[in-house]
Amino acid sequence: MADLSRFAINQITTYSWSMPEAIEGYAAQGVGGIACWRNYVADYGTERTARHLRDAGLWVASLCTSAWFNVAAEADFQAAIEENRRILDMAAAIGAPCVVMVVGGVVPGSKDIAGQRLRVRDALHMLAPHARSVGVKLGLEPLHPMYAGDRSVLNLISHANDLCDELGEDVAGLVPDVYHCWWDPAFESELRRAGPERILTFHYCDWLVPTRNLRDRGMVGDGVIDIARIRGWRSRIGH
Amino acid sequence: MADLSRFAINQITTYSWSMPEAIEGYAAQGVGGIACWRNYVADYGTERTARHLRDAGLWVASLCTSAWFNVAAEADFQAAIEENRRILDMAAAIGAPCVVMVVGGVVPGSKDIAGQRLRVRDALHMLAPHARSVGVKLGLEPLHPMYAGDRSVLNLISHANDLCDELGEDVAGLVPDVYHCWWDPAFESELRRAGPERILTFHYCDWLVPTRNLRDRGMVGDGVIDIARIRGWRSRIGH
Repeated sequence: MADLSRFAINQITTYSWSMPEAIEGYAAQGVGGIACWRNYVADYGTERTARHLRDAGLWVASLCTSAWFNVAAEADFQAAIEENRRILDMAAAIGAPCVVMVVGGVVPGSKDIAGQRLRVRDALHMLAPHARSVGVKLGLEPLHPMYAGDRSVLNLISHANDLCDELGEDVAGLVPDVYHCWWDPAFESELRRAGPERILTFHYCDWLVPTRNLRDRGMVGDGVIDIARIRGWRSRIGH
Repeated sequence: MADLSRFAINQITTYSWSMPEAIEGYAAQGVGGIACWRNYVADYGTERTARHLRDAGLWVASLCTSAWFNVAAEADFQAAIEENRRILDMAAAIGAPCVVMVVGGVVPGSKDIAGQRLRVRDALHMLAPHARSVGVKLGLEPLHPMYAGDRSVLNLISHANDLCDELGEDVAGLVPDVYHCWWDPAFESELRRAGPERILTFHYCDWLVPTRNLRDRGMVGDGVIDIARIRGWRSRIGH
């Protein structure tokens, strides 16, 4: 049987399972870890989730995801910052080393993607002290450019690396996902630039041809992403 | 009435019109130009199209599109090169200054996007002499990364600029489309890098939120792309 101790399942891929069902279901298959989603944690209870994870022996890859910053009003922006501080607290409570930062798209009613990228940068700087204090990293996940409008204005791993450079590696890292980055000619070189410490966790799935809609992800092996080659890149940088 | 003399309509946006219907329809609205698609040209006849365009006083922005290079067998690759030479001939015959190069995605059955990018580069070098001899440029259109699997492995304007650098500006240029490039943090700087001569023609449409599928383009103004700002970039570089 394959060693699945370093393998974690992202909870959203078994979305019909409750938190305890996911914990028990993964553990029963010998899966080592879990990437938790906060709605499931909240439904089950943070402390109860933490205890159940410990009892089942599952390690936690990350907590998904941050609250979005694509809000127009300053008060709403501050509320999003505060909500993300509470999400960092939840991550600390369940033993997640990072919160996966999905930052939101363009502000509804606006067309200013460049301006929103600057606001996201501000938000990350505002969150850094709390992240540091609770010992949870800001896991920057670049999302595929097809999500720039409505889900995230952070679309390139080079951009995420730039942000890590300025935030500091003690508080920020990368959450690369092959689905979002596979097409990027700079994917390999940006992983090398990041190095093993900065890569907090790594997502595998596949890009289907044809892709029917913007949620049409494939199982590993069913698409055109060269997973083995990408795994080789990680090995060579010591990840 | 607005001056539409520099404005061309891409024929695929009126796909139910035949070539003569498009020519007459655009001219009747005072539209200055047309981006022709080769299937309509072939249906109507190349010489007849050329004559009708001249008679109607329409200028030709481009001929769409190249034949794809995502073929496995060497003989098929050579056939694609030869087909593209004939497409360059068609462009010359109708007075199109460039063929819009849509280069094809990953080779079916392969997962080697990096290797396919090198083959595309080879193909462009192989086409350059014929393009030069007939006076038609290779118009490199980066396609949105969501088309990397099945339509084009050329996905970044920086990549297209790199290719123009090595092919030479006398034979290669850019066909930027805001739909494909709007999300790219380097869009403005890469247009500046290109300068006015290298930008052969420029496509406007819009990115809708939500975007329902991979063909769900919007009319200019209906989406989140800041068209006015991008038009300003072009003005400042003298395009």
